[in-house]
Amino acid sequence: MDNNNFVKAYAPATVANVCCGFDVLGFALDAPGDEVWARKTEAPGITISAIHGIAGLSSDAKENVIGVVAQKMLEDLNITHGLELQLHKGMPVGSGLGSSAASSAAAAFAVNALLGSPFTTQELVMYAMEGERKASGSAHADNVAPSLLGGFVLVRDYEPLDVVPLGVPLELYCTILYPQIELKTSLSRSILKQEIPLKKGIRQWGNLAGLMAGLLKKDYNLLSRSLHDEIFEPERSVLIPLFKQVKEAALAAGALGAGISGSGPSIFALSATLEQAQSVKEAMESVYAGSGIETKTYVSQVPDQGVRLVAQSTFQPAVSL
Amino acid sequence: MDNNNFVKAYAPATVANVCCGFDVLGFALDAPGDEVWARKTEAPGITISAIHGIAGLSSDAKENVIGVVAQKMLEDLNITHGLELQLHKGMPVGSGLGSSAASSAAAAFAVNALLGSPFTTQELVMYAMEGERKASGSAHADNVAPSLLGGFVLVRDYEPLDVVPLGVPLELYCTILYPQIELKTSLSRSILKQEIPLKKGIRQWGNLAGLMAGLLKKDYNLLSRSLHDEIFEPERSVLIPLFKQVKEAALAAGALGAGISGSGPSIFALSATLEQAQSVKEAMESVYAGSGIETKTYVSQVPDQGVRLVAQSTFQPAVSL
Repeated sequence: MDNNNFVKAYAPATVANVCCGFDVLGFALDAPGDEVWARKTEAPGITISAIHGIAGLSSDAKENVIGVVAQKMLEDLNITHGLELQLHKGMPVGSGLGSSAASSAAAAFAVNALLGSPFTTQELVMYAMEGERKASGSAHADNVAPSLLGGFVLVRDYEPLDVVPLGVPLELYCTILYPQIELKTSLSRSILKQEIPLKKGIRQWGNLAGLMAGLLKKDYNLLSRSLHDEIFEPERSVLIPLFKQVKEAALAAGALGAGISGSGPSIFALSATLEQAQSVKEAMESVYAGSGIETKTYVSQVPDQGVRLVAQSTFQPAVSL
Repeated sequence: MDNNNFVKAYAPATVANVCCGFDVLGFALDAPGDEVWARKTEAPGITISAIHGIAGLSSDAKENVIGVVAQKMLEDLNITHGLELQLHKGMPVGSGLGSSAASSAAAAFAVNALLGSPFTTQELVMYAMEGERKASGSAHADNVAPSLLGGFVLVRDYEPLDVVPLGVPLELYCTILYPQIELKTSLSRSILKQEIPLKKGIRQWGNLAGLMAGLLKKDYNLLSRSLHDEIFEPERSVLIPLFKQVKEAALAAGALGAGISGSGPSIFALSATLEQAQSVKEAMESVYAGSGIETKTYVSQVPDQGVRLVAQSTFQPAVSL
C-alpha cells in the first residue's frame, strides 16, 4: 500500500447558462477554484480529514460531494482500500460559479490520478456529475464539464451524455461580480416558465448559433451581437438586485456581453482584453457601491485548460509491498 | 443607353429549416437552380419578356418575384430607365427547395451586376427578401441568404438583419427527394404550435449548437449526432407521406442526417461523399416506388459559392452616348 503517496488537484470555477446557451454551454475560469488532496489508506472507506477555506461544509464523506464522487469511483473499480481526502475551498458556495462542480471535478481528477488514471475524461465528467446530483438533486454537466476540460464546453445531450469541448484557444477575459445575497438554485429554477413562445425560441437559437460561430471563428463582434438571453434572464434577473444596472454598466464599459452566471446571483461579463475586463470590474462594482450589499469580484482569463494536478508525491518501494 | 448589354445570373436551390436550425439555418445546393436574364431598356418600367421551364407563373412584373425585386432596386436608386427580364426556372415551385428565393436571388444579383454593382451582398439579401415577401407574405432570409452566399448560412436575427455565412469549405453532399404532392407553406406553418416545452427547447438548442460546432470544426460525427429536430419535424412530417420511412431509409443507407427541406414536402439528406449521397438517393426513391406518388430526386454538392453570373455581354460605345 503506497500510502505515503498523494496527489492534489485544482479545479476552476465555471460559468454555466451562458446567455442563450442556457443548460448547454459553460466555460471555465482560471480562478477562483477548489483543491482536493487525496491519499490511499489501508483501512477501507473514505475519510475527509480536513476542509479549509470555508466553514459549515460537512466532512461526512456521504454528504460532501468530494466523498460522493470518490466513493462511486472506488465502487465501480471494486477497490477495497480506502481514501483520505482534504478539500481546500477557494470560492464561495451558492454563488452561481459552480462551486460544487469545482470540488467534484477536483475530486474526480485527483482520485483518478491517484489510482493510475483508469478513467477517461468523459468518464470523469460522469463521476463529477454524481457530485452535482448530491449538491443540487440534478446530475447536470454544464459546470463540471468546463471545469474538467477548460475553455467553452457544449453539453449537447444527456441521453447519452455528449460533451463537446470547443477546442479553440480564445483570448477572452471574464469579470465576475458576486453580490453576497442568498439565492437558492431551486428558487432560481422554479420561477422558469415551462413553455417558451415559439418566436422567442427562434431568436434564442439564432443567438446561440451566432455565439457558437463567434467562438469558433473568433469573431468577437458576432459573439457580442449574440450574447443575449431573451427567455431566462428576464425571468431570473428579478432575483438579483441591481442586475440590469450592473449589466448596463458592464456593456457601457466595453464588455462584449454580460449575463447571469449559472443560476446566479453572480453576474459575468466577457471582454476581449484583460485591461477591458478590469475596467468592466470597476464599472460593475461602482453600481453596488453604497447599496448595502457586499460584493466579491474576480477577473480571470478564460483558459484552455481546466482541472490540473498541482502537487504529487510518489513513494516507490524497493520491492512490491 | 447601353441596351445591348445584358447579364444572366444563376442562383441555386436551398435547404432551409435544417433540422434543429428551424428558421435560422439554411444551405445552398449547386443544382437545381434558376436563371434570370436582364437588360436595360430606354422605356421606363419592368417587362418580363419570357418565362421558361415552367407554366403558370405570372409575367406581370408586379406579381412575379423577379419583377418585385428589380422594381425595388430601381426605385431605391432613383433610376428612371427600365429593365427587360427573363426567367428560366430550373426547379419546381412549392417543393420546399427555395424556388421563389432562387428566382429572387438571381434577379437581385443580375440587376445589381447590370447596374454596376451599387449594392453590397448584405443589401442584395434584403432586396431578394422582398421577393420572399411577395411569394409568401413573409420576408424571410433563410433561403435567399444561402442562395446568394453559398454554403451554410445562419440568419441570426432580423432586427436588424444579421446574416452570417459560415465560411468553412465543406465536403458535403445533399440528396433531395421531392414527392410531387401539393403542400402549402401556409398550412405547414399553421400546424406549428406557438409554445415550445422548455425541455424540448433545451434539447433543440443543444443540437443546434452541436450542428454549428460540427460544421465549423468539420466534425461529421458530431454533425450527424446533432442533425435532429424534435420540435417541428414531428408536427410537420405528418403532412408528408412516407416521411418517416424515407428518413429511416436514408439513415440506413449511410446519410449523416435527414429532415424536411424548408416547409416540405421535399426531404433532404446529407452525406459525406458523393457515392454515399447516390446510395442514399436510391434508398429514398425505393420507399416511394409503387406508392403512386411521383418523385423527383437531386444529388448535389453543398458548394461554397451561391449565385453567380453565367453570361454577360458588354457593348462599349466609342463615345459616351
